[in-house]
Amino acid sequence: MSGATPTGRGPSPGSPERPADLVISGCTALIHDDDGSIGFADDAAVVVRDGVIDAVTTSAAVAALPAAEHIDGRGQVAMPGLINCHTHSPMVALRGIAEDLPVEEWFNDRIWPIESNLTESVVALGALLACAEMIRGGVTTFADHYFAMDSVAAAVTRSGLRADLGWAFFSSQGPEGRERSLDFALRTRGAAGGRITTSLAPHAPYTVDDADLAATAELAREHGLPVHLHAAENRAQTTHSLERHGRTPIQVLERAGLLDTDVLIAHGTGITDADLPVLAHGSGRIAVASAPRGYLKFGWDTTPVRALASIGVPVGLATDGAASNNTLDVWESMTLTALVQKSAERDPSWLTARQALGHATTQSARALGLDGRIGALAPGHRADVILVDLTGPHTQPLHDLAATLVHSARSSDVRTTVVDGRVLMRDRRLLTLDVPAVVAELTAQLPELTQRKEGHRIQTYDA
Amino acid sequence: MSGATPTGRGPSPGSPERPADLVISGCTALIHDDDGSIGFADDAAVVVRDGVIDAVTTSAAVAALPAAEHIDGRGQVAMPGLINCHTHSPMVALRGIAEDLPVEEWFNDRIWPIESNLTESVVALGALLACAEMIRGGVTTFADHYFAMDSVAAAVTRSGLRADLGWAFFSSQGPEGRERSLDFALRTRGAAGGRITTSLAPHAPYTVDDADLAATAELAREHGLPVHLHAAENRAQTTHSLERHGRTPIQVLERAGLLDTDVLIAHGTGITDADLPVLAHGSGRIAVASAPRGYLKFGWDTTPVRALASIGVPVGLATDGAASNNTLDVWESMTLTALVQKSAERDPSWLTARQALGHATTQSARALGLDGRIGALAPGHRADVILVDLTGPHTQPLHDLAATLVHSARSSDVRTTVVDGRVLMRDRRLLTLDVPAVVAELTAQLPELTQRKEGHRIQTYDA
Repeated sequence: MSGATPTGRGPSPGSPERPADLVISGCTALIHDDDGSIGFADDAAVVVRDGVIDAVTTSAAVAALPAAEHIDGRGQVAMPGLINCHTHSPMVALRGIAEDLPVEEWFNDRIWPIESNLTESVVALGALLACAEMIRGGVTTFADHYFAMDSVAAAVTRSGLRADLGWAFFSSQGPEGRERSLDFALRTRGAAGGRITTSLAPHAPYTVDDADLAATAELAREHGLPVHLHAAENRAQTTHSLERHGRTPIQVLERAGLLDTDVLIAHGTGITDADLPVLAHGSGRIAVASAPRGYLKFGWDTTPVRALASIGVPVGLATDGAASNNTLDVWESMTLTALVQKSAERDPSWLTARQALGHATTQSARALGLDGRIGALAPGHRADVILVDLTGPHTQPLHDLAATLVHSARSSDVRTTVVDGRVLMRDRRLLTLDVPAVVAELTAQLPELTQRKEGHRIQTYDA
Repeated sequence: MSGATPTGRGPSPGSPERPADLVISGCTALIHDDDGSIGFADDAAVVVRDGVIDAVTTSAAVAALPAAEHIDGRGQVAMPGLINCHTHSPMVALRGIAEDLPVEEWFNDRIWPIESNLTESVVALGALLACAEMIRGGVTTFADHYFAMDSVAAAVTRSGLRADLGWAFFSSQGPEGRERSLDFALRTRGAAGGRITTSLAPHAPYTVDDADLAATAELAREHGLPVHLHAAENRAQTTHSLERHGRTPIQVLERAGLLDTDVLIAHGTGITDADLPVLAHGSGRIAVASAPRGYLKFGWDTTPVRALASIGVPVGLATDGAASNNTLDVWESMTLTALVQKSAERDPSWLTARQALGHATTQSARALGLDGRIGALAPGHRADVILVDLTGPHTQPLHDLAATLVHSARSSDVRTTVVDGRVLMRDRRLLTLDVPAVVAELTAQLPELTQRKEGHRIQTYDA
């Protein structure tokens, strides 16, 4: 498929003296060079021990290596699992309930009234269904920003996925909202055998006031926690923020001290040129999560990926919640990022297939502060690996493997999903979750969930 | 799933006196009301006799009906097979060979030089691979515009698909090009048991001169043939045409008399407001095929679907060739049409999921002049039916079936594809084509195909 070899790692099976936990052989491996550029190694093997990638080598080098589990990767590309950098996983329960609406009506007339009926049980079942969807789509890590997050943590534990979790809050909840977010973050980080990290999760500058944002920044520094929030979701929010506060949402974050923390900004389609130096001067790890499907659907601009690249801000791929995005399909986000960025910049040479794969792997890992741990098939990284079948008629013949992955393959071509060396889906069969059971339980709760009661609404959208 | 019943058709199994050839029962059927609007009938059955839909009724009504073949459609939506209104099927052989390029370089430096190496064998194998991809994606009819079309007709015959075929020509080929296109259209129409219709296929107004276009219009009238060509593919072509000829590409077609024939215009992203009355006044059946993926990729505008709707011009869904579009996935074209139209019009309430399904079904059938024969599950229509599985985690729960189909389901959810009552794919297994054999043969011919020889090029792009 391509001539690259697993550079710098040699044809060694890692620690040949002891059996591997998992060996994937015969595949084409997507590997990153030292400068981050992407190559492909033919007839490669991935050796996993103790949940970690011990070696990326040749199939020949592992031919005699004993392994507890072996996967034949012929005809498939092994690549780092996808990372969903911003979602509200339990909102799969509301998939399709608020269609073809502008964002004001979407929030005020549908989503926030319905969310006033949320129960722990709906959140738990929604999160499980979301995990099933993500595992089948090759997602191995997701950043979730929602309520009743203990139930989401339980779903992460049960499903085997990796996640960064933040309990969302509004200033309208009083100080309890922020305190709950902190309490959850502190007591849950490191859970699920280290697969769960946590963030503080103010909702957005238009629902969390300046004092609360500044207090969040303070807590982030004090406790070494990152912050995950929505900001500059669309151009109108930026315009309104300027009218009301004389500052863009990004400038509001700066003034609150949030750009000197490790902050993950969801969407950012309303980021302006004037915001770029502000972002560039923040001392924290600043990243943006882009979910391009929903921006098309709402008729918004898209995330200014090229401008953000020019100041070194990583852009991770995301799906947002399924109530607006309709899928948790990060593969689709990768494809749409390539297509929409070309369109927005009116430049077919921008956002090449390899760049798109960079956003899906290393840039998404950086966005979550997990670079060096996930996002690459390299020794010492957690063994979060997916196998993508390229034998289907829609992915043949092969002239350009990166283009085939980004523009011809789909999430349904992911056959096997591995997290921390544990196989969560094998040959499209889920091994940790029972979808029909979850769907049946969730469906039974929908009538109560979707009742809209006069005046009931968890928050009002006025941004 | 929805309360609609198969209106006007009653709970009758068609002709109860004789056994059916095929019965699909237990499904939810997508049906069109008399005004063309889309509804869904629960626990429905489709009865097929002699390649035709004899009844769309209830499962109960067919419980005792003998049938040569039965498909259990529980958990699935039965809908009309998708129609690819513009493609160059053999170009799957070039999938991924010319990426991230502007259209001039794409044509002049890659595609047209490589196409000077085309052989009958490559066209035949490419068409077979394309048919396999389309059957797996739920496409039952495609409109093809290419060269060596006898080989494509053979692939249509073998695969079991339905197609409208046109042999493309340039004026640079001299009168022989036009004559070959006519000869093919006349001797091939009605082939494959009536599954093949044909069109005259001038390439485009920028490669076929006015005299040739006028001669084509004359031949179309004389022989009762439709015309399928590219026009106003992008905004730059319209600008250049105005500069060079003082007329837009659409006005060039009008002057040639082509708008008084049955004409299918591919792309039309460069159609201007001034073109609308010109199109509205044409006496022929005028339609546009839209392939939105490629427009994003080239950084073009998209087809002005809303403006065309305002003058009653149907817009069918298309994929173009896989060398630019990377897939022949009409389901993706449906989804992208919904998303991109909302974005282009900056109106989330435009191009609803039901409108998108209308483009995928009746509008696409009208675009090919096959309305009344395909594009609806209704008695008397050809039995071109697909079954779409909605039990996956990414399509649950169900709040809005149209939204689930357009925004959550994907082509890989199509489990069964039926054309003229013949099952071409069952439970994702292709029954008429052997993909590995086709891929192996085609791959062996790629080195010769992809050689670019100095000065060899079938045509020059200068539009």
